[in-house]
Amino acid sequence: MKATVYVTIKQNVLDPQGTAVQGALHSMGFGEVEGVRIGKVLEVELATTDRAEAETRLKDMCEKLLANTVVEDYRFELEG
Amino acid sequence: MKATVYVTIKQNVLDPQGTAVQGALHSMGFGEVEGVRIGKVLEVELATTDRAEAETRLKDMCEKLLANTVVEDYRFELEG
Repeated sequence: MKATVYVTIKQNVLDPQGTAVQGALHSMGFGEVEGVRIGKVLEVELATTDRAEAETRLKDMCEKLLANTVVEDYRFELEG
Repeated sequence: MKATVYVTIKQNVLDPQGTAVQGALHSMGFGEVEGVRIGKVLEVELATTDRAEAETRLKDMCEKLLANTVVEDYRFELEG
């Protein structure tokens, strides 16, 4: 079973990487860019066919390693 | 207009960061994880209401800065 996990910085937390990319885009002529926030996307392959079990395990992985829940939000989608 | 840009490593390119995360998950007891690949997700706010123009400009941004098209793929979604 394939899962896609999205880890994004919480809205009230500063994102210096996003600000840097926005500055770079402005200096390259993309002045219409009003904001950039950068997160991670993880494609995870799981050796399980049980959807409910996969969801429980993925939540556990996110809480323990994949996301820093103090400053980051996460969500995931399961395929197949 | 809000856009979400996904930048992922091409399938035939090695992803050492993903391999490291997979190893960490294994050592934490998540042995069912068969593969992890890590990419970026960018939330971009654009000061335009023209969908076609936004698509053209985003493609340009991806080709010039946001993605390294030699080793990365990109796709984006537009909202509103």
